[in-house]
Amino acid sequence: MGISSEKSDFVVIGGVAAGPKTAATLARRLPGASITLFQKEEHLSYATCGFPYFASGEVNEFKELLLTPYGVVRDAAFFKHTKGFDAVTSARVTAIHRDNKTVSVEKTDTGEVFEHGYGRLVVATGAVPKSPPMPVADSDKVRHFTRPADAVSFRQSAQRGKVESVVIVGGGFIGVELCEAVKDMWGIEVVLFEEQPQILPYMLDPEMAAIVERSLAGDGVEVNTRARVEKIELDAGGCPVVFVEGRDPVTTDYVFLCMGVTPEVSLARECGLEIGELGGIRVDERFQTSDPDVYAGGDCVETMHQLTGRPYYMPMGSLANRHGRVIAENLAGNPARFPGILGAFVLRAFEINAGGVGLSEAAARREGLPVRAVWGSFTDKPDYNPEVKTLTLKMIVEQDGDRLIGLQAVGKGDICRRIDVYSSLLGRGARVADLLDFEHCYAPPFAEALDPLHHMAGIAAAGARGTIFIGPGELEDKISEDTVVLDVREDEEIAADPLPGFVANTSKHVIRVPLNDLRTRVEDLDKNKRILIFCHRGLRSYQESLILEQAGFERVGVLAAGLQAQH
Amino acid sequence: MGISSEKSDFVVIGGVAAGPKTAATLARRLPGASITLFQKEEHLSYATCGFPYFASGEVNEFKELLLTPYGVVRDAAFFKHTKGFDAVTSARVTAIHRDNKTVSVEKTDTGEVFEHGYGRLVVATGAVPKSPPMPVADSDKVRHFTRPADAVSFRQSAQRGKVESVVIVGGGFIGVELCEAVKDMWGIEVVLFEEQPQILPYMLDPEMAAIVERSLAGDGVEVNTRARVEKIELDAGGCPVVFVEGRDPVTTDYVFLCMGVTPEVSLARECGLEIGELGGIRVDERFQTSDPDVYAGGDCVETMHQLTGRPYYMPMGSLANRHGRVIAENLAGNPARFPGILGAFVLRAFEINAGGVGLSEAAARREGLPVRAVWGSFTDKPDYNPEVKTLTLKMIVEQDGDRLIGLQAVGKGDICRRIDVYSSLLGRGARVADLLDFEHCYAPPFAEALDPLHHMAGIAAAGARGTIFIGPGELEDKISEDTVVLDVREDEEIAADPLPGFVANTSKHVIRVPLNDLRTRVEDLDKNKRILIFCHRGLRSYQESLILEQAGFERVGVLAAGLQAQH
Repeated sequence: MGISSEKSDFVVIGGVAAGPKTAATLARRLPGASITLFQKEEHLSYATCGFPYFASGEVNEFKELLLTPYGVVRDAAFFKHTKGFDAVTSARVTAIHRDNKTVSVEKTDTGEVFEHGYGRLVVATGAVPKSPPMPVADSDKVRHFTRPADAVSFRQSAQRGKVESVVIVGGGFIGVELCEAVKDMWGIEVVLFEEQPQILPYMLDPEMAAIVERSLAGDGVEVNTRARVEKIELDAGGCPVVFVEGRDPVTTDYVFLCMGVTPEVSLARECGLEIGELGGIRVDERFQTSDPDVYAGGDCVETMHQLTGRPYYMPMGSLANRHGRVIAENLAGNPARFPGILGAFVLRAFEINAGGVGLSEAAARREGLPVRAVWGSFTDKPDYNPEVKTLTLKMIVEQDGDRLIGLQAVGKGDICRRIDVYSSLLGRGARVADLLDFEHCYAPPFAEALDPLHHMAGIAAAGARGTIFIGPGELEDKISEDTVVLDVREDEEIAADPLPGFVANTSKHVIRVPLNDLRTRVEDLDKNKRILIFCHRGLRSYQESLILEQAGFERVGVLAAGLQAQH
Repeated sequence: MGISSEKSDFVVIGGVAAGPKTAATLARRLPGASITLFQKEEHLSYATCGFPYFASGEVNEFKELLLTPYGVVRDAAFFKHTKGFDAVTSARVTAIHRDNKTVSVEKTDTGEVFEHGYGRLVVATGAVPKSPPMPVADSDKVRHFTRPADAVSFRQSAQRGKVESVVIVGGGFIGVELCEAVKDMWGIEVVLFEEQPQILPYMLDPEMAAIVERSLAGDGVEVNTRARVEKIELDAGGCPVVFVEGRDPVTTDYVFLCMGVTPEVSLARECGLEIGELGGIRVDERFQTSDPDVYAGGDCVETMHQLTGRPYYMPMGSLANRHGRVIAENLAGNPARFPGILGAFVLRAFEINAGGVGLSEAAARREGLPVRAVWGSFTDKPDYNPEVKTLTLKMIVEQDGDRLIGLQAVGKGDICRRIDVYSSLLGRGARVADLLDFEHCYAPPFAEALDPLHHMAGIAAAGARGTIFIGPGELEDKISEDTVVLDVREDEEIAADPLPGFVANTSKHVIRVPLNDLRTRVEDLDKNKRILIFCHRGLRSYQESLILEQAGFERVGVLAAGLQAQH
């Protein structure tokens, strides 16, 4: 597809998500307008988020990531005929000239260079991988995982049986997804190095991430946190060698650098558009930049977090698509605004799902918000349903109020449903009581009569009334020699899942009293001792704490989310 | 468990859901209070909603429906020791004396009769099956499906291979769930008779119910709508014979009468409590009855619909549990209110799921609300995900505004997530634009970059701008000899899923133009003819309609939700 004129009413820089979405919506709203999109790569639009599933083999053909739902490739002809705009591929924009409202373009396939004028410009240049902070050897076997070639190259090597081990540097979203992609299908040994004390450090609080770490370890992934990679070299045979501070070097077949991405703003910066404090193009809630004729959206911009009102950077295809719609509506003269980000995310790693929305406890404290946290473990369906699975939730609420702040969810069960509902409430400033009023659709194949979100609201209210919940990550710090550990599980449960070793080793007073017997045995317990109640999911411990409080005990704590959340 | 005194601070009549939930919450809030619950049956609390899954064998032991998540039977000892209240089983309350604040109780196991005083009373007497409007023979083989014995009896007969065919009278929630329970596990022939022109008549609009009907038929269930059962007799061998108006009688091994339930209000009526217009006990938003000392909740009360502000009856375990909490909080002196009902429901029938929330189009019109409807078919995950499944949505919005009114969802895909989100928005008076602002958690194993709810918002906005959507149920009425049927699918799709016979038989102008070719072939089409655009899921038809409208066509309609929603 060539260029039909020297000027377009609208020029869009960048393919994949935000750019094409903007152009397509705009073409629908303003059918007479000329719209030209320049994309530097060969492919115009593809499902970047699907790369791990192509790498794993779960998606068979790379082409599937390029198709519309009805099996047509999203190429220039598709965009021209179906969507009504000109898309030019292998067309790298080398400069934006805001003074005369043109862009300089280089056709990387033909070498042609030209200027193209715009009435309004949309910058959707996406993100680029962060530069590694350490020396990294130049090799096809040491890669980011952001371009089609990264996924294709690995998949080809894996299919030929040429990869026995992979090192993943960085335990964020992509790094954790890749663990499954690499290990599950190809049986490749996977070693993960994360510099922070936990994986998924900016998404989950440590104790929730720990559940994912244990799960990954159970699936055979070697997860190393507090592991700073110092350099990556090549050995004599060309294999990468990863040097980690304080450890022996690891020689491997493939290294993926998953240390996050950063907004691609070089064009924007060079032409003098304002850049925000997080390094993304600064835009208002209509995605207008500091130049009224230039809009920007997708992974190259920073937007506001709805809860803090402060800039936030979250490169996600789902958000980029929503940016595109809002940009197009505004360019077409229909006022529309983007409400900001709530931070909803989900990922799968083998059998376990992890996700969340809103602020984590750590993030809230960093923002100076006084918050408290509660935890709970639940089944996602009735226990008698053979397909029942569990999930562990952590909810963050205002310290001295009941405004909702965040939710984190980890487990094999259906977490998306709860995150999505919480997200829709969070976006409307909801409170704990609003969770109680949430009417979920209920039938035994899908849900319990009370949803986990209803229970979390009850637990949050109990916390406000004074019940002390010991979080899954706090147990080792909160248990001492004198702590009375009251295990209220049934005998069969204890046999199937003994107390963690450090509990039995630390406390001198481990007492077993099944819940049904407690009221008759309250007198055996010492009111002066700190009592910490243990059960499988936390619910019984909470009930037990009420019985003890009614009997005059004052130093009672509950192991929130139960022993299940300990492993 | 005997009765410890002649008077309790709080007396609760009724087990199962609302009663025990009230008593347990109350015992937590007011530890010093005396609380007595009378339950006429042997079992105190069980998962009624799980009966179909016990009948089917999916749940192995009936006992599983009685257990807590940690494997303890919910019996009187459990409620006493764990929950802190007295529960008396086989204790039928025969009268409420509001003048002297006592109830008369008959122990059905011992014959003992006594009076018990109350400070405050909670009536949670549940519901009873509606009396059949036709003569029905008295037989163990002709049953409702509301009591433990119903499920146990059927399961025993099925396991012994004594049931070859079952007739289900009534195509509501339980009737449809039972189709699967009976047929899937035991391979029993199932014939369903529903008097209305559709199954699930008060829950889904006809065209959405039709998708479920076709799915049931595909699973081998004989679904008969507009089929009025005149009487049920027994043949010489004691087998039920079902007489249906205008049809041959059907002899079968078992008949389930699933014609709905009605509030059990005989005690309430006899003691003079106000009964509402739907036959349930009248309560305010705190579940207080016309007597300030008497509260009522669960399946025996009618509450308000949040969207209409009018009385609504919805007997659901999920709601009963929420009633119980609100009653207990109010009795304990903590103000709490129930916001009313939104009508969220979901059910599974073999592989297909069906559900909804808010008002159906038919219900909205009955209420005199001016509304419009839009439809869409979607995948619940990206198409390249091997586990992708589809769902068809219908959304009801204000006719001349954009307030959300209702959502219906049918398909194999994940519908709960969308219903729950819509429900949480609906409860807060949301508008179409709020759907666009909904931030869902996105990753390819779980979702598309844009959620079906985002697309539905876009479709609703298109409808407001003038696009004409022909609903899945409207096609036969809207197609005529002169209608131009424009099929924009690819050749392979047409081969896999030909146009319905009545389309080819009715229209003289069936034209095939794949979407990518349309712009170049617009001139071949006649602007004076009515054009109806067909594709698989509706999305392409919508895009095509925009192309035609841009080209000056004025009589263009879109087959909403596509051909997929036709079968």
